[in-house]
Amino acid sequence: MRLGIDVGGTTVKIGIIDDKKIIRSFAIPTKKETLFKDIYEAVKDEKNIEFIGFGLPGTVKDNYIVNLPNIGIKDVDINEEFKKYFPNVKIASTNDANAAALGESIAASKFKSTYFITLGTGVGGGYVYNGSLVNGSHACAGEVGHSFIDPVHNFKCGCGLNGCLETVSSATGVVRLAKTYKDKFKTNIDFDTVSCQKVFEAAKSGDELGLYVVNMMADYLGIALANIAVCCDVDAFIIGGGVMAAGDFLLDKIKESYVRHAHYGVRNIEIYKASLGNQAGMLGAAYLDE
Amino acid sequence: MRLGIDVGGTTVKIGIIDDKKIIRSFAIPTKKETLFKDIYEAVKDEKNIEFIGFGLPGTVKDNYIVNLPNIGIKDVDINEEFKKYFPNVKIASTNDANAAALGESIAASKFKSTYFITLGTGVGGGYVYNGSLVNGSHACAGEVGHSFIDPVHNFKCGCGLNGCLETVSSATGVVRLAKTYKDKFKTNIDFDTVSCQKVFEAAKSGDELGLYVVNMMADYLGIALANIAVCCDVDAFIIGGGVMAAGDFLLDKIKESYVRHAHYGVRNIEIYKASLGNQAGMLGAAYLDE
Repeated sequence: MRLGIDVGGTTVKIGIIDDKKIIRSFAIPTKKETLFKDIYEAVKDEKNIEFIGFGLPGTVKDNYIVNLPNIGIKDVDINEEFKKYFPNVKIASTNDANAAALGESIAASKFKSTYFITLGTGVGGGYVYNGSLVNGSHACAGEVGHSFIDPVHNFKCGCGLNGCLETVSSATGVVRLAKTYKDKFKTNIDFDTVSCQKVFEAAKSGDELGLYVVNMMADYLGIALANIAVCCDVDAFIIGGGVMAAGDFLLDKIKESYVRHAHYGVRNIEIYKASLGNQAGMLGAAYLDE
Repeated sequence: MRLGIDVGGTTVKIGIIDDKKIIRSFAIPTKKETLFKDIYEAVKDEKNIEFIGFGLPGTVKDNYIVNLPNIGIKDVDINEEFKKYFPNVKIASTNDANAAALGESIAASKFKSTYFITLGTGVGGGYVYNGSLVNGSHACAGEVGHSFIDPVHNFKCGCGLNGCLETVSSATGVVRLAKTYKDKFKTNIDFDTVSCQKVFEAAKSGDELGLYVVNMMADYLGIALANIAVCCDVDAFIIGGGVMAAGDFLLDKIKESYVRHAHYGVRNIEIYKASLGNQAGMLGAAYLDE
């Protein structure tokens, strides 16, 4: 048995996993002060645990938590805090987008190498090469939300740079673009209650502003995927995150932009929607040793 | 002993290699009709050959040559054409930029994962992960010369796309930029005999146009490296190719742009000049099985 532990800002999702399947899962509240003790209490009666993997919402390298800004945890050695409870079990960790990337890659079992992009409040990602997660030399592989992609608006990003993919193709990016162009196109979007979802709903119903914004954010995503493709050339792209609730309406636009911008050698890389939703992190975390 | 064979448009460079060192090397002319037979004749008396690797100037996948445009060879199975001469020796192949990438990575032995960029007539590259070359699912990993990087000029690229890195940061790109801006800046560059080298010479002597162009091509390279860094996060970037004859004058400008555009997590990735020159392809080809 393996434990896949996906730590979020409000809950910790714990999966008991065998043979690449989640046998059982449950959640406990995330408490900053007692995070690892709480996890131990929740899993201590599980039998035959051979591996424990963590997906964490922030920067983690070699089982050392640099910063989990949404929880308020910094500079914590997981080996020190958690290994004592399971001295004979191998423990590994990565960030939440990487864990989800590996989980989705396992679910897409016909592909050996994949690049996962998650479109949420920000844009995250993860790179799986020959079935194994690539963390990168500075634990930054997959941070493609901070590719420089938009010199036109050159919006300031939370990371300190300008023009990052995240500034235009995340949920907040969609709202930002809608506000930027709201006086240039006819629209029924109510800007007192605007949200990414509402921009997509408007676009689907033919709203001029909504369509302009969705086409633009999808165009940037297609460029980003085309650049990833010539960089590390994978079997498939997997797109997940809350924004993908827009479904094929968005996926088709991303594919169309991808084909327009991709080098001929990689133009037929498959692009498809993530299938596991919020289970991906648990599944991937459980196989960080592979 | 290993043979590393770097096939170029006019000569084939053959290295006899042991313990990651080129013991001896020589060259033969490249003849389209008798390429593999000529190579065999040149190496048939070598003793104790345990591996033969080819670096080829074009598209090659799983020992099958799709196209070598500069030689005029297409659709050739290396296993069929060459394996007969060495039935018991393992043979592998890749494109020339990939072979050079692996060679330079071996030379830079303190780094396990590197991304190599070669600035010549075009822009090529190669990705080495944990000491092994990443060919990619479509033999296109490293084709970062065809990243979409320049929506401003959006020059047409030889690959059929527009705005590729190669259109602005290669030797031909430098000349293209110089011609584009020649009426906008004071310059002593003679456009009857303009070349990439002359643009760099002008820039070094303070020529306004030369400096503008070199700063711009280096700026694009810094952006491209910053995007590669968040995609697969390596230990070091290695920059080679004829354009790097410009030395630290260019390298320093690339570094400066990189630091401006790179995500904070990868900002300290080392960027340095390739050290092997035209020996890199032989050395790398000899270790394609690692």
